[in-house]
Amino acid sequence: MRKNKVPEPTVARLVQYSHTLENLCRQGTTIVSSEEIAHGAGVFSSQVRKDLACFGEFGTRGLGYNVRELLDQTRTILGVNRPWPVIMVGAGKLARALATYRGFAERNFDIVAVFDNDLTKIGGKIGQIDIHPLETLPAIVGANGVVIGIITVPAGAARPTARLMVDNGLTAILNFARVHIEVPEHVVLHNVDLSAEIGILTFKLCHPFVSFCHDPPA
Amino acid sequence: MRKNKVPEPTVARLVQYSHTLENLCRQGTTIVSSEEIAHGAGVFSSQVRKDLACFGEFGTRGLGYNVRELLDQTRTILGVNRPWPVIMVGAGKLARALATYRGFAERNFDIVAVFDNDLTKIGGKIGQIDIHPLETLPAIVGANGVVIGIITVPAGAARPTARLMVDNGLTAILNFARVHIEVPEHVVLHNVDLSAEIGILTFKLCHPFVSFCHDPPA
Repeated sequence: MRKNKVPEPTVARLVQYSHTLENLCRQGTTIVSSEEIAHGAGVFSSQVRKDLACFGEFGTRGLGYNVRELLDQTRTILGVNRPWPVIMVGAGKLARALATYRGFAERNFDIVAVFDNDLTKIGGKIGQIDIHPLETLPAIVGANGVVIGIITVPAGAARPTARLMVDNGLTAILNFARVHIEVPEHVVLHNVDLSAEIGILTFKLCHPFVSFCHDPPA
Repeated sequence: MRKNKVPEPTVARLVQYSHTLENLCRQGTTIVSSEEIAHGAGVFSSQVRKDLACFGEFGTRGLGYNVRELLDQTRTILGVNRPWPVIMVGAGKLARALATYRGFAERNFDIVAVFDNDLTKIGGKIGQIDIHPLETLPAIVGANGVVIGIITVPAGAARPTARLMVDNGLTAILNFARVHIEVPEHVVLHNVDLSAEIGILTFKLCHPFVSFCHDPPA
């Protein structure tokens, strides 16, 4: 890492560059230009170069980037070059969609168990993954060295779920519940709020002449 | 609208403020302070006031906000105060999770049809919604005045799906496929990339001392 401050959109784009590089690698391409990487993410090549510059020096001026090398480097920066044992709490429809989401496996998210307190779900499976009672969470987290938890419970159950995860040593939470949860400073929390995405879409539809700027107002 | 440039995070937070106001309204609360609205979204009250100031003047200094009034105003700004007929292309597991996602109905997203080209799925249902063959998309879009399309097909099919949507007059697309798609300027496109969310999470886990800044590097 070169800088100790990185824009979140840069990290999101790094994921896209990594996808493009994966595809190129699969196709047997060995060298790639910043223009080609940029195309895959729908940005300008100058953006690719500036984004990469946050993390170090890559490629050779005039010669481009070695695909395999840059792929390994981006995956290392993103932390997806190693497997992450993951648990999910909440065995509903969203959990079902996520458990079979190809992107999870590709990002090395290995869902080791799903938990629920619904007796009709416990003992069942989501894909290949067993649904366990919540009481077994501490033992399964410990046995598998789990650090990441995904919250797919209804909003009302999200806060106690987060607390249970933190109490059992998880240090990263991906929260799909539509509620603000608080975690201690050492825990990484990332919220995915689908209804915010919808709000942004309908906002854009209703205000076609308003453009989005990057400056936060506070 | 007061400004012609608005930060996207402001709009995302406006959705959260709107949720908080909905809950307060349901509980019968009539007046609320910016502190209480801020608490629901996990921000400072100054942030709430600055965010709202992007859109006009609300509330009375020292008296707070009228809950019902501010809720109506935020819903109008977000464009979720009116129903939006929506179609979804791709009848897989993600479609199944989304179709029953409570947030869609609350944001007035009315999914009128799901389309697929898989003969084993056509004629079936996702919840209460019929799965139709792709060829009937133009007729159903026309008959229902649909302007919003949700893409839940695999990455390889996303671009032709977007083209089909645009050709049939849709002006907003919510894309869940992990591929960059291009749309004409008059079409609003919003991408939801779950694997980017994972990348951001694992990045934060691997680089605990890197903080996120808002300045884009280009």
